[in-house]
Amino acid sequence: MEPALTVTFQSDARSVTIEAGQTLLDAAFAAGIPLNNVCGGRGICQRCRMQHISGALEVDEGGRLNGVVLACLSRVRGDVIVEVPPTSRIEGEQILTGAERGIGPFLPIPEEAAGLPRAAGLFVPSPLAFALPLELPTPTLHDCVSDVQRLTRELRRQRNIRDVTIPLEVLRTIPRVVREAEWTVTALLTRADGGYELIGLQPGATAHAYGVAVDIGTTTVVVHLVDLASGATLGAAAALNRQIAFGDDVISRIIHAGEPAGLERLRTAALETANLLIGGLARTHKVARDEIIGAVCAGNTTMLHLLLGLPPGEIRREPYIPVATASISYRAGDVGLRIHRRALVVTVPGVSSYVGGDITADVLAAGMDGAEELSMLIDVGTNGETVIGSRDFLVCCACSAGPAFEGGGITWGMRAAKGAIQRIEVTPAGVLAWMTIGGARPRGLCGSGLVDLLAELLRAGYMDRAGRLRPDAPVVREGPDGPEVLVVPAPETAGGADIVLTGADIENLLRAKAAVYAGAALLARRLGIAMQDIQRVYVAGGFGTYLDIRKAILIGLLPDVPPERVTFIGNGSVAGAKMTLLSYEVWRRAIEVAQKMTYRELSTDPAFMEEYVSAMFLPHTDCARFPRACAELGMQV
Amino acid sequence: MEPALTVTFQSDARSVTIEAGQTLLDAAFAAGIPLNNVCGGRGICQRCRMQHISGALEVDEGGRLNGVVLACLSRVRGDVIVEVPPTSRIEGEQILTGAERGIGPFLPIPEEAAGLPRAAGLFVPSPLAFALPLELPTPTLHDCVSDVQRLTRELRRQRNIRDVTIPLEVLRTIPRVVREAEWTVTALLTRADGGYELIGLQPGATAHAYGVAVDIGTTTVVVHLVDLASGATLGAAAALNRQIAFGDDVISRIIHAGEPAGLERLRTAALETANLLIGGLARTHKVARDEIIGAVCAGNTTMLHLLLGLPPGEIRREPYIPVATASISYRAGDVGLRIHRRALVVTVPGVSSYVGGDITADVLAAGMDGAEELSMLIDVGTNGETVIGSRDFLVCCACSAGPAFEGGGITWGMRAAKGAIQRIEVTPAGVLAWMTIGGARPRGLCGSGLVDLLAELLRAGYMDRAGRLRPDAPVVREGPDGPEVLVVPAPETAGGADIVLTGADIENLLRAKAAVYAGAALLARRLGIAMQDIQRVYVAGGFGTYLDIRKAILIGLLPDVPPERVTFIGNGSVAGAKMTLLSYEVWRRAIEVAQKMTYRELSTDPAFMEEYVSAMFLPHTDCARFPRACAELGMQV
Repeated sequence: MEPALTVTFQSDARSVTIEAGQTLLDAAFAAGIPLNNVCGGRGICQRCRMQHISGALEVDEGGRLNGVVLACLSRVRGDVIVEVPPTSRIEGEQILTGAERGIGPFLPIPEEAAGLPRAAGLFVPSPLAFALPLELPTPTLHDCVSDVQRLTRELRRQRNIRDVTIPLEVLRTIPRVVREAEWTVTALLTRADGGYELIGLQPGATAHAYGVAVDIGTTTVVVHLVDLASGATLGAAAALNRQIAFGDDVISRIIHAGEPAGLERLRTAALETANLLIGGLARTHKVARDEIIGAVCAGNTTMLHLLLGLPPGEIRREPYIPVATASISYRAGDVGLRIHRRALVVTVPGVSSYVGGDITADVLAAGMDGAEELSMLIDVGTNGETVIGSRDFLVCCACSAGPAFEGGGITWGMRAAKGAIQRIEVTPAGVLAWMTIGGARPRGLCGSGLVDLLAELLRAGYMDRAGRLRPDAPVVREGPDGPEVLVVPAPETAGGADIVLTGADIENLLRAKAAVYAGAALLARRLGIAMQDIQRVYVAGGFGTYLDIRKAILIGLLPDVPPERVTFIGNGSVAGAKMTLLSYEVWRRAIEVAQKMTYRELSTDPAFMEEYVSAMFLPHTDCARFPRACAELGMQV
Repeated sequence: MEPALTVTFQSDARSVTIEAGQTLLDAAFAAGIPLNNVCGGRGICQRCRMQHISGALEVDEGGRLNGVVLACLSRVRGDVIVEVPPTSRIEGEQILTGAERGIGPFLPIPEEAAGLPRAAGLFVPSPLAFALPLELPTPTLHDCVSDVQRLTRELRRQRNIRDVTIPLEVLRTIPRVVREAEWTVTALLTRADGGYELIGLQPGATAHAYGVAVDIGTTTVVVHLVDLASGATLGAAAALNRQIAFGDDVISRIIHAGEPAGLERLRTAALETANLLIGGLARTHKVARDEIIGAVCAGNTTMLHLLLGLPPGEIRREPYIPVATASISYRAGDVGLRIHRRALVVTVPGVSSYVGGDITADVLAAGMDGAEELSMLIDVGTNGETVIGSRDFLVCCACSAGPAFEGGGITWGMRAAKGAIQRIEVTPAGVLAWMTIGGARPRGLCGSGLVDLLAELLRAGYMDRAGRLRPDAPVVREGPDGPEVLVVPAPETAGGADIVLTGADIENLLRAKAAVYAGAALLARRLGIAMQDIQRVYVAGGFGTYLDIRKAILIGLLPDVPPERVTFIGNGSVAGAKMTLLSYEVWRRAIEVAQKMTYRELSTDPAFMEEYVSAMFLPHTDCARFPRACAELGMQV
C-alpha cells in the first residue's frame, strides 16, 4: 500500500488525504471540488488546469502548459499545495435557466428557448406527488372509526382518492399529528401503481410541495425545480456528470462499472451530481429538501442503470440485455436522492439498451405519440437517436455520434453554460461576431455555436465541403497542427487564451453530424418513408437554449426539409421528465410510448456505413438530398 | 444515577449489569432469561422464584417464601448471585402442539384438539407468500427484452401473475442470479394489494418457503410454522408475552405505553417473544429464518398497536379511537420480525378498539361469515368477546373478564402447557383424579382444568352455588386464608409444593365466567335473539387443547344449549391467522368480515351489571336459563 499524502486546495481551505500516485483530479474529486473535465481525465480537454504551488508532482507528458498543470495528468508524490482557478471549476457554469440568459454582444435569444415543454397544454392537474390540506371531523362516540379510517375516508370523500398505503413510520405519527393540529392537517401523497402512498402528514393546512425533474445525461446532468401545486418551474441547474472522471461515453462507463466497486463509484458520482444541483436549487429558492416530494429521472438506459446501481455489463454484450427499461418507482431514500426520504422517484421508461427514457421523454415533450401527422425526432447527443412515427406507430434507432456537439473532443468545446459562444456569424467584413450565454466573456464554444461556426465557414467559403479550411481565409491561421480558425483572440476571452477551432475539431464534428444524419436517413429509408413525407422534425439535444435550424440543415446535421417544419425542443429529456412529474396521465402515456415504440438495430445494417460515408460531406455527398442547402451554398443540385 | 451492579445467574453462566434498586425480574429480563410472571411483577402469582445465593438484596414484604425469593419483589443492592429453578422458567413450557400432547395419568385427549383450523376445506392454494420455480428462455438477438421483462413475462405466461413490483435491492441482484443459474430460478413472491412483490430471486428450482401465523395474546404469544407449499403445519410454540412484565391486562399496558420509552419497551417485548418462538421453531424444523417469507399476525387491537409501535393511548380515552384497525401489510424488516427481511407481514383486521383481529380470525376459523345458520362465538380470554351472526350479519361486543382462565390471578393457575392439569374429576371415592398436558408431573392448573375443577366440586356438592367451599368436604382443608381445595399434595407435584385452589381463586373464576356469560347473554338480548335460536356456539380461548363443554355449561361459563351445538375451536386467533397466511381469498374475507362486523358497546348498557350479578352464581341465579345444568345438579328448574 502506498503512503498517504495530503493535497491542499489553497483558496478552498480544504485538504484531502490520498495515496501516492493518485492524480490531482482524484484529489479534487475527493475534496468535493467539481472540476471541468469533459474528456474524462485523459489530458485531452485541458479544462482541469491548476496552479502548482508546492510539493512533489509527477506530471505526465502534455500535462504542463503555460505555468499550469493539468490535474488529470499530475500524480501526487508528496504533500502538495495547489490553487484551482475559477475557469477550471464547474460551479461557475452550473446555472442555465431562462431567467438568467442575458443578452450577449449582438444577438437576442428567442423567448421560447427557455427549455420548458411545448406541450404544456396537455397537462392535467395530477402531479405524481402533491400536498393536500384536509379538515378532518373530530371523533365522537357516534363516529369512532380509527384515525387511519377517518383520514382515508376524507381523502375519498373530499378528493376521490382511494387505495392509500401508509408507511409504518408515518402511521406511527398520525395520532399525535391529527390531535396536535386539531384535525386540520396536510397529507403528502405520492402516486403508486394503482393508488397512492401517504408519505407524510403535517399539522395545519399548507400546500407547499415541490418536485424535481432530472435529466441524467452521459455528459451533463440537468435538474429543474418545480412547484407541484402550480406546475411552475422555479429554477433550473446543470452540471457535468461527475461520472466523466470514469470515461466520457457510455461504453467506458460500463467497462468501469465492471471493476471492483466501479458500479458503486459511478452510482455515487451520478447521485452526487444530482444532489449537488438539487441542493443548490433548493437553497436558491428557499425550499427545504424535505419539501421536495417527487422526482422524475430521465436518461439513457446506461445512465438510469448507474443511477439505480443496476449492473450495466450486459448492455454492451450481445444480445445487449439491460436489467430493466420499465418505469421504476422507488422512494428517494432507497435511491439516494437527498430529498424527502419517502419522496417518489420515478424513471421515465425506455425501450432497449440503446434507446432509453430520455428518448421516451423527448417523444412526450414533442407530443409525437398523440399526433396524427408523421413526424421525426432527432436527439443529438453522445448517442444520436432518431424516432419516426405518429399516434399509430413509433420506430426508433440509435447510433453512436460521440460528444462533439456537447463540447467533448473539441479543443474549445463546452456545454451550453455561461460564457459559451452559442451564436456566431461571419460578418460582411469577414470577421467573426459572436454571442455568449449570459453575456459573459467567452470561455468556449457550445453545440449551437459549433453548428453556427461550421455553417458560416462553409457559407463564407472559408471551408470546403470536405471540411478543409482555406488557409488564406481571413479568420484562418496556421496552427501547431495545420490551419485553424481563430474564433476569439486571447485578450477578449475569459481564460486569457485564444479560442480556436482546429482541423481535428472539424473532423470530429463531421463524424458526429454524419452519424446522426445517417441514422435518421437509414431509418426513414427502411420504413419506406421519404423525407418530404415527414410533416414535422423535432430536434432535441444539449444545444442549450438555442439552435439555428437553417444552419443545422446547411451543414447536413438535419435533413433538408422546409425549415418551418423543424422545431427545436431543447432538452426534451428534462422537459418530458417534468411533464411526467406533473401528471399521472403523462406517466401512463410514457409507459405506453415505451411499450409501443419498436427498436430497429441499424448497426448491423450493411447500408449504414454507406449512409455514413455519404454524410461525411457538407451538407452531403448527394446534393439531391439537400436541394435548399446546396442552392444556398450556390451549388448545382 | 444509581451505581451499576452485577447480577449473575449461576447455572445460566450469564451476568448482567443493572442499576441499584432494580429488581431481579428486571435483571432476568435483561439477561434474556424468560421468567414465569403471570401477574406482571406484582408479587401475586409467586411464579418468579429464585434461590438467593449471595449479595445484598432488599426484599419487599411477601417476597420471601420457604427459602426462596420472588424476583419481582427483590431489589438489587449489591453484586448478587442467584439461581433460577426450572419451575420458574418459561422455556420449559413453550411447546404445545398436537404432536406433543401425551396421554396423561388417566384421560385420553380427543384427536381434533390439535388446534388446526376446522375450515381447512375452504382453502384455495394461494398463500400470501410463496416460492415459484421458473425456467426463463435464454435471451437472443430476436428476444432481447430486459431481464425484468423476461422474468415478469414468464410469471404472466406461466402463472398469470401480473403487476409485480421489485424492490431496488432485489432488482440489483437479478442479472447476476439469472446468469449464474443459467436461467433456472426461483421467485419468492408476496401478495401486495392488487399485485405481487418479488422479494427475492434464487438460483435453481427450489420451492422451499415457509410462513408463520402469530397470535399475539395479552397473556400468551402463539406461533405456528407453516410450509407454504403444502399448507402443512410443521410445528407450534407458545410463550408468555414478555409484555407481562409491564402489566397483565391491556389497560395497564396502554398506561405503560404512555410513559417515556414505554411504547418502545412494549413493542420490543412483544417482538422478542415472537422472535424467540420463531427462532425456536426454525431451529427445530431446520428452516432458515430467510426461508420464512410471510407472517400473519392476529391479536386484539392493543396488542397489534404495540407490535407495530402505534401509540395506543386513545384506545382507553373516550371516544376510544384506535390508530388503525385495518389489515396492514409491511415488510418484516420494518416491523422487526426476524424472518426474511422483505417477508410480508400482515395483520388480521379488527373492528374497534375492543374487538380486534383475533376475533376476526376466530370468525374466519369458525366459518361463521359464510354460514346460513345463526351462530354465536365466545372467546374466553383476558377480554371476553362475543360475536353473533351469520353470512348476513355479524354483531360483536367485548367485556373485561380478567385473565383467570389463562391462569392469571389464580394461585396455581398457569397456561395450557406441559405439566398443566387440564382435566380433573372427583372420583366416586371422593378423591381428585387428574391429567396433565404431556403427562408430566403437575405444575399448576390451566383453564380447562379450572373449569373441570369448579364443575366437579359443584357436582360433588363440595362447593355451593355461590362458590363457597364446604369445609368438611373430603378434598377441602383449612388454608391460611380460609377453606381451600388440596388439588395435588406436594410429593406428587413438579415443584414439591401443594397445588391448591383457594376461596379467592374461586371468586376470581366466578367473576371471569360471569363477565363472559353476561356479555354473550346481553348481546343476544339486545338483538332479540333467544339462546335456543342459536344453531351453533363456537368457543375459542386459551384453554389449550381441551375444554369439557358440558362442564363449562355446568358452571354457567357457556349458555345452556344442547352440548352437540357447541364446538370448541381452541386458539381460533392463530387458526384464522394461518388460514389468512395460506390464502389470498381468506385475506379478502378477513377484510370483509372486519368491515361487516358491527360493534355494540355494552359497558354503557345499564342492563350489563344486572346480567353480571345474576351470573355470579353457579350456573346462574336464574335456573330457567340453565335447565339442563340445573337438572344435572338436581335442582328445581
